[in-house]
Amino acid sequence: MNTQAAISTSTEDLMANAIRALAMDAVQAANSGHPGAPMGLADVATVLFNRFMNIDPSADRWADRDRFVMSAGHGSMLVYAINHLLGYDDMDMDQIRNFRQMGYRTAGHPEYGHAKGIEVTTGPLGQGITTAVGMALAERMDNARYSDDLVNHYTYVVAGDGCLMEGISHEAIDFAGHIGLGRLVVLWDDNSITIDGSTDISTSTDQKARFEAAGWHVQAVDGHDKEAIAAAIEAAKADPRPSMIACKTVIGFGAPNKQGTSSTHGSPLGEEEVAAARKTLGWSHAPFEIPGEIYEAWQAIAKRGQAARVAWESRLTSHPKRSEFEASHGAVDGAALTAALTAYRKQLSADAPKVATRKASEMVLEVVNATLPNSIGGSADLTGSNNTKTKGMEIVTRDSFGGDYLHYGVREFAMAAIMNGIALHGGFKPYGGTFLVFSDYCRPAIRLSALMEVPVVYVMTHDSIGLGEDGPTHQPVEHVASLRAMPNLNVIRPADVVETAEAWELAMTETKTPSVLVLSRQGLPCVRTAHTDANMTAKGAYVLREADGGRDVTLIATGSEVEIALDAADKLAEGGIKAAVVSAPCFELFAAQDAAYRAEVLGDAPRVGVEAAVRLGWGDMVGPDGAFVGMSSFGASAPAGELYQHFGITADTVAAAARGLLN
Amino acid sequence: MNTQAAISTSTEDLMANAIRALAMDAVQAANSGHPGAPMGLADVATVLFNRFMNIDPSADRWADRDRFVMSAGHGSMLVYAINHLLGYDDMDMDQIRNFRQMGYRTAGHPEYGHAKGIEVTTGPLGQGITTAVGMALAERMDNARYSDDLVNHYTYVVAGDGCLMEGISHEAIDFAGHIGLGRLVVLWDDNSITIDGSTDISTSTDQKARFEAAGWHVQAVDGHDKEAIAAAIEAAKADPRPSMIACKTVIGFGAPNKQGTSSTHGSPLGEEEVAAARKTLGWSHAPFEIPGEIYEAWQAIAKRGQAARVAWESRLTSHPKRSEFEASHGAVDGAALTAALTAYRKQLSADAPKVATRKASEMVLEVVNATLPNSIGGSADLTGSNNTKTKGMEIVTRDSFGGDYLHYGVREFAMAAIMNGIALHGGFKPYGGTFLVFSDYCRPAIRLSALMEVPVVYVMTHDSIGLGEDGPTHQPVEHVASLRAMPNLNVIRPADVVETAEAWELAMTETKTPSVLVLSRQGLPCVRTAHTDANMTAKGAYVLREADGGRDVTLIATGSEVEIALDAADKLAEGGIKAAVVSAPCFELFAAQDAAYRAEVLGDAPRVGVEAAVRLGWGDMVGPDGAFVGMSSFGASAPAGELYQHFGITADTVAAAARGLLN
Repeated sequence: MNTQAAISTSTEDLMANAIRALAMDAVQAANSGHPGAPMGLADVATVLFNRFMNIDPSADRWADRDRFVMSAGHGSMLVYAINHLLGYDDMDMDQIRNFRQMGYRTAGHPEYGHAKGIEVTTGPLGQGITTAVGMALAERMDNARYSDDLVNHYTYVVAGDGCLMEGISHEAIDFAGHIGLGRLVVLWDDNSITIDGSTDISTSTDQKARFEAAGWHVQAVDGHDKEAIAAAIEAAKADPRPSMIACKTVIGFGAPNKQGTSSTHGSPLGEEEVAAARKTLGWSHAPFEIPGEIYEAWQAIAKRGQAARVAWESRLTSHPKRSEFEASHGAVDGAALTAALTAYRKQLSADAPKVATRKASEMVLEVVNATLPNSIGGSADLTGSNNTKTKGMEIVTRDSFGGDYLHYGVREFAMAAIMNGIALHGGFKPYGGTFLVFSDYCRPAIRLSALMEVPVVYVMTHDSIGLGEDGPTHQPVEHVASLRAMPNLNVIRPADVVETAEAWELAMTETKTPSVLVLSRQGLPCVRTAHTDANMTAKGAYVLREADGGRDVTLIATGSEVEIALDAADKLAEGGIKAAVVSAPCFELFAAQDAAYRAEVLGDAPRVGVEAAVRLGWGDMVGPDGAFVGMSSFGASAPAGELYQHFGITADTVAAAARGLLN
Repeated sequence: MNTQAAISTSTEDLMANAIRALAMDAVQAANSGHPGAPMGLADVATVLFNRFMNIDPSADRWADRDRFVMSAGHGSMLVYAINHLLGYDDMDMDQIRNFRQMGYRTAGHPEYGHAKGIEVTTGPLGQGITTAVGMALAERMDNARYSDDLVNHYTYVVAGDGCLMEGISHEAIDFAGHIGLGRLVVLWDDNSITIDGSTDISTSTDQKARFEAAGWHVQAVDGHDKEAIAAAIEAAKADPRPSMIACKTVIGFGAPNKQGTSSTHGSPLGEEEVAAARKTLGWSHAPFEIPGEIYEAWQAIAKRGQAARVAWESRLTSHPKRSEFEASHGAVDGAALTAALTAYRKQLSADAPKVATRKASEMVLEVVNATLPNSIGGSADLTGSNNTKTKGMEIVTRDSFGGDYLHYGVREFAMAAIMNGIALHGGFKPYGGTFLVFSDYCRPAIRLSALMEVPVVYVMTHDSIGLGEDGPTHQPVEHVASLRAMPNLNVIRPADVVETAEAWELAMTETKTPSVLVLSRQGLPCVRTAHTDANMTAKGAYVLREADGGRDVTLIATGSEVEIALDAADKLAEGGIKAAVVSAPCFELFAAQDAAYRAEVLGDAPRVGVEAAVRLGWGDMVGPDGAFVGMSSFGASAPAGELYQHFGITADTVAAAARGLLN
């Protein structure tokens, strides 16, 4: 890499000022946005890109590119300005002029998938740095499999004070320090300013000591001294530990009357101050005009990257593991997985084992992991409870990145964000487990999975009062509903071992939608004893047991309550009432079916919903005249069977509710 | 306090072994639970209670008691054993024998409100320590108002490795170190074990250095050396900084074959190992039998506390600020607030200002804060955006605890947990702000507010795509629904300044239910120009505009979409269609009305729901044949007006949906 290039400081000054001009002018044009961070960070970013970054704008998905993560996502104009200057073909000046406008790629915060060269959606603070931990981890895991020839890059992060105040930053740096991610370099925008004012109104932490306590290599530099920045990045790359460089910057650098204050953080500078900044910076060009030589300087970076990418491709062509590499960086082999799991389902239907769906999940994962060579398992310190580790999985450690199972520690939020990072990096298909109730702890990262369309798999066990004695703090009652509220997320609550296999097939083959598998602690009978080649869970809901001779009532249930619905149907049959039972493992997939199928499944008869959770979201399933048997409060601490009795989630109450609808 | 007491070590050994015996026997009887932590911590807890804790089991709510928070809530048997031994009258041996059983107070994790002497519900890791920060902060704020005579106590926390791995612990210790909570003492159960095994599989952080980096006083002791523990607590109390004492303990201490391993963490020891532990500990008593002299030793602590409490009461009786103290520690003066806000609403209805509801909230808060002397405001670094700081509010700082406004920093989760702690401590009525989208960041603490029945107030602004340019990362679409899923939480989304005043009246006078106020960034017209003395928001939903001569259709909306529904009704009227408009600011309060009222409001006509959010939860409002105008995806980055057009949330689409229902 061209780190010794004798690029004159004055050229880099111009390169940095181009960022500043584009940022202040775009924010001014939008009359909305954050000029302070891009202006403050322009020198750091210029040095990083000019002297270190190995990227090719003409091949933006090149697997071995360096990753740049703008964790302080409100400073999005830094990214857009750089990507424009580098010559990404989807980031012309029209995009910059229309920052934050409808239909343009230059969203208020960087959105993954909206434009090339945006590695991760950022803005929710602290998540960028943690997602970057996942990327840097994936780089090492990929390197362990394919050697330096194919995988040999760095992950650079710009993090602000807000990122480092958020709790998730602790989880990220503790994990990164522990597992020794030496190719992760965090540039802390140490500008001492947050929205409410100086950072000293809310924090006194010695960040450098804090990172050192977590096993990081730490340096501090003047964030406007380009040689110092370069030397620090050089040292960071050389050190085997993850590195944090505290870059002391002036927020809004160049705006003479406002720089260094929170007034530059989240508001346009104003025409007058923009004019004054032009004068201060010696920037005589009109808004959205960049001199050709500055473009040339930036695009030299692109050319350097392109040459590196071409060299890499020739190494790939002759690499003995080329096909494995390409397969692992491509889509999951859905056909192989479907074949393997369909065969396994056939056996399961015949054997009809009664197991908890968390245990069923482990059984199915044995098949999944045997079929997909690049799945990466893990748990937030609940491996034995989530049943996420299959036979032969090896722990990933700082000394052995060739493993395929991660001890995420008691860090649900970081686990989720790291999984996003692993998936974004490519090469692996991550899944990770915790208790369903702790989906709340990682919900902001689940949201980014959904928003970024990253199909990671959340294994959420202990899914209801059925977990028993741990009590209401550990018993989800509102979580299934609250996850169903999130766009682009499949919430799948299988009823038995067969539906669990179907759920895993769906989750691992989704390409744009993350999945939450909602699994029981308690044992559940196999209700799908008749094998179908079709994956019925893919329909979202289906008639598990039709009522002979027409329905008097339809009982709709999910997960552990399907068993109860079947029992209720038996009880109703004793009284001559014909009840159909619908299993509805995934509301989202059911909503995506055509109206005719949905009408056929739901039927014309009165409906009773059963789920050991709150009613919210069931209105559309059972209709306004329908009944619902579930929870309307938090749970309690007692053995599971007693709790089901206590809260009235039983075959008797379901049958009584059905009779009530018929009277 | 009796810190010099010459209690023989051997008595303390017996006191500690009583904890161990009760813990291992109760877990064994339940065949479920966590014996390791109580057995490992028995010495630390015995020293803390025997030599330091100032509590009176006969007056468990005594305002000036020391607080004990078992942040590692899975070790609940430590708390139950201690409270039994201390003689709390609701913790007899029957409770211990029936640990984790239906109908008993001895839940799997300590549940606030279930039994005396439980200061906070713990179990979701990291929240206990953070809630304790709120308690210790409230102690200093209360002290600043009422002097050492009335407020002079400590907050002690036992935190485990899991608590310190969770991200929220960073927010807690950064905040506590910054604001200088010298009366907070954290006892870290440094046992090097988590569920998945040794802590060295997932963390390498030097916790002592980490706490020092955050400005804490740090010590390390052998957690089984009682004199060392006592000396460290003594030093911690004397130091002006918050203190962390790393107590090196052996998990499951006394169980000879299992101690020091993760097998003691979350499972019963087994009959054989329990018998072996009896031998090792020299504990010859039968299960659930405690010798009288051990009870006597524990109850000496209670007697000491009782004497202190009696002395305190006599100080209170003669204290010049007695009535203010009692008022601030009692219920909110609802009558005064209602009177003030009703008068203010009358004026608002007459003036009909068009303001964003976040601005309306600030206007109303001026009245609220003038009426309630003990409200404590704050924001997670969004003061100017959340409009949470009213005139004259003073910042609370380490040098000035007499203030009434908190800069929580970029720490939404800690803010929520700290508010829980302030409310649990007593003396104050906390509210705090962030963006609605970041309710995800603090959701686990909102859940504890709801579960503990702590009526804190969450001020959540920027409540929809109406926030505009910041884009999808900052635009809540699923949050209102996901919060509505939570039991015992009022989610109130006012339509205008008048409903905002009503919402604040409800939120500040609730005694057992936390509230989330969901407020707009954008300006909204006043729709309640006809004053009613009655608080209409208290009904949850009400007919804002009736259709003359019978309804053809009912339009139901919340918040910023009420304006749109009114416009749609006008458009429909032009076509001869009579539309009623229902404002539905709080679904939970509406569900609590009687069936007749609900039927009257919803009417018999077809219904259209309008909310700039997902449909989940609207099924019951609009019925299966009803229509809904809202969001079905994440948002986008553009000016707010364009987004409403783009996503089709307009009076035209609402009117079209209504016409569609009628055709």
